[in-house]
Amino acid sequence: MNAQLENQLRAAKMAAREMMTLDTTDKNNALQAISEGLLAHKQDILDANAIDLKKAKENGITDAMYDRLTLDEKRIEALSASVKSLIDLPDPVGEVIREIDRPNGLKIVQVRVPMGVYGIIYEARPNVTVDIAALCLKSGNCCVLKGGKEAITTNKALMHIMLEAIAGIVPEGVLSLIENNDHEIVDELIHANDYLDVVVPRGGAGLIQFVVKNATVPVIETGAGICHLYVDKDADLSMALEIAKNAKLQRPSVCNAIETILIHKNVYEDFLPPLRAAFSKVKIYGDERTCEVIKAEEATERNYATEYDDYIVNIKIVDDVNEAIDHIYKYSTKHSESIITNNQATADLFMNALDSACIYHNASTRFSDGGEFGFGAELGISTQKLHARGPLGLREMCSFKYKIEGNGQIRE
Amino acid sequence: MNAQLENQLRAAKMAAREMMTLDTTDKNNALQAISEGLLAHKQDILDANAIDLKKAKENGITDAMYDRLTLDEKRIEALSASVKSLIDLPDPVGEVIREIDRPNGLKIVQVRVPMGVYGIIYEARPNVTVDIAALCLKSGNCCVLKGGKEAITTNKALMHIMLEAIAGIVPEGVLSLIENNDHEIVDELIHANDYLDVVVPRGGAGLIQFVVKNATVPVIETGAGICHLYVDKDADLSMALEIAKNAKLQRPSVCNAIETILIHKNVYEDFLPPLRAAFSKVKIYGDERTCEVIKAEEATERNYATEYDDYIVNIKIVDDVNEAIDHIYKYSTKHSESIITNNQATADLFMNALDSACIYHNASTRFSDGGEFGFGAELGISTQKLHARGPLGLREMCSFKYKIEGNGQIRE
Repeated sequence: MNAQLENQLRAAKMAAREMMTLDTTDKNNALQAISEGLLAHKQDILDANAIDLKKAKENGITDAMYDRLTLDEKRIEALSASVKSLIDLPDPVGEVIREIDRPNGLKIVQVRVPMGVYGIIYEARPNVTVDIAALCLKSGNCCVLKGGKEAITTNKALMHIMLEAIAGIVPEGVLSLIENNDHEIVDELIHANDYLDVVVPRGGAGLIQFVVKNATVPVIETGAGICHLYVDKDADLSMALEIAKNAKLQRPSVCNAIETILIHKNVYEDFLPPLRAAFSKVKIYGDERTCEVIKAEEATERNYATEYDDYIVNIKIVDDVNEAIDHIYKYSTKHSESIITNNQATADLFMNALDSACIYHNASTRFSDGGEFGFGAELGISTQKLHARGPLGLREMCSFKYKIEGNGQIRE
Repeated sequence: MNAQLENQLRAAKMAAREMMTLDTTDKNNALQAISEGLLAHKQDILDANAIDLKKAKENGITDAMYDRLTLDEKRIEALSASVKSLIDLPDPVGEVIREIDRPNGLKIVQVRVPMGVYGIIYEARPNVTVDIAALCLKSGNCCVLKGGKEAITTNKALMHIMLEAIAGIVPEGVLSLIENNDHEIVDELIHANDYLDVVVPRGGAGLIQFVVKNATVPVIETGAGICHLYVDKDADLSMALEIAKNAKLQRPSVCNAIETILIHKNVYEDFLPPLRAAFSKVKIYGDERTCEVIKAEEATERNYATEYDDYIVNIKIVDDVNEAIDHIYKYSTKHSESIITNNQATADLFMNALDSACIYHNASTRFSDGGEFGFGAELGISTQKLHARGPLGLREMCSFKYKIEGNGQIRE
């Protein structure tokens, strides 16, 4: 293993021991110091970011990537505020989850503890460097961060500011950035079972699948969102329209936006024309019945299996809720789905039969978010079934242990 | 992928949909039917087992392996009883874990759901075939089982009896056994991300490490147990002796038995002679101070890092509780540790500072067990931090989802 990486991992593992019992006050002081440090060193961040942006432009990256790479004054202030907002959230560490009194007198207490050391791999979004560092600190975790190489100058500046801010408040080694951009470094990170408790890929489907298919460290898979909206025959169609607009148009680039709208055969002729009007800037792929009513291109299997993250949507007409459920089972990434209906029995069937992390009745899928769930912030949206599903808040970033008090019990 | 394996996996994935909403009564009826089926077909099982045992003897397997492979009337009855005992346990599926009412009127309910499809890889212990099938049924999960090749005839007989018993009660495909013994089949199983939600290796360290280091399906790591007992200066030494005897001698072959006893420097001269007497059939590896007081071989680094599962123990004298904690951090597999002391502050330090799944004060590590925790039964003892730690009971075998009720909410 790369010696520098191994040093960082070893330091994180050492720090994780101390983080287990660190006071909430110390963690909050560290967050406060980071929040202030970001504001105090705004110009340093902008200067560093300018270097990355210049290089990015020379290398001809896309507008979307350029935007994600960019930090301006407003974004730095927002970043500082989001770090500060974690201070008021309850400390998940030490929470009693369950108490069990056994007949033999043993008292078993299940308490929440930090996970330990997170390895995080992400793309060229420097805000992620700060967001994740802050979430890890508050949840008592250590992290080793590997961001996209296009953001390296900005990330180094941000890490320098954060480390300076927290020095002496939390143990050394708690946070670190991998500065090496060799391709092998990611490979070493996702195989560092001796040091990491979990690895989380944050980014596009390619990155996530690379990590899932190659890591031997336990992975939390986040973010892939082929989400569905089903408009039932018993739907309030004006509510359905508002929710369709919100779920597709408000922010198409995010994982909790919808990719496919399923419509009951009894209502599609009424629902499609106003939808088409509201979706004027959206490219629509439709099935046969859809294409008969509105202007749309013919949808293929491949459309249903694609996460667009863009102003593109699939529309399919179904005979009943069961056909909608079957379609969702086939194509969903098990992130978020919603049914619009005034029939509670139909809603219950949909919500019980489906196996996605978040299933809505008469609401937009866009609420699948740590803030919207009341968790305050999130590491991502888990789409796997192990450990945690949906928004990964501070609690979900933790593990637990059992403390068992006895008075000499032995097993018969 | 092997066509037969793919059929089994596909059938399990289909069945998992139905299992999500299967009535508790149906699951219990299936367990009852299996329990009765095992008794009714006792002779078939014994006949099948005789074939495996004969072959095993010809191939010269060890006595311990032969014992684990053996089913006799008593063991079959115990197996039947253990399946039946699951009937009275509460159904974990559908339990409400948490309810969140949001200011915008959204009502978020976190409910427990089955994990989906388990892949289980285990050694030549035919009882595991039945135990795991029953646990999966009760927790609403499907499973594809790959047992050790030496037990194949017995496993096929057991699976045949179980499938006959549950036919018509639970969906087809819920349980299946991989009968193919090609080495590649395990490799295909641990990479079947499209079908499996989790894979659990049950067996020796070699099997577990192979799966952990190679699987791309999420893994729950179980069973490795380098467990420690620390006898503090403020210990009740007679309690400590009874617990040491229980934790090492009652059943040395299991993962929650101890491998190392750490003793405070103030009490070792008093504690060691009676311990040596009680451990007459135990081989002791000791540090320098230990070897000065009792007959023992000199311990090396390697001893401290070995899970013996046998009548062998390491003894090390420490200067204080912090040295004990440091030693445990270095060598523990994070399964179970115990401190014997009448000083609550020392106990709290030990329990808070350590990061093992189960940490005991004045009790034997042998209680790290689903039954002893009141979970009724267990899939194994998890030694990883993701998902669940310690005994994996029915609840821990499940995942969860969020159901969100709204009345037209859209995100601002």
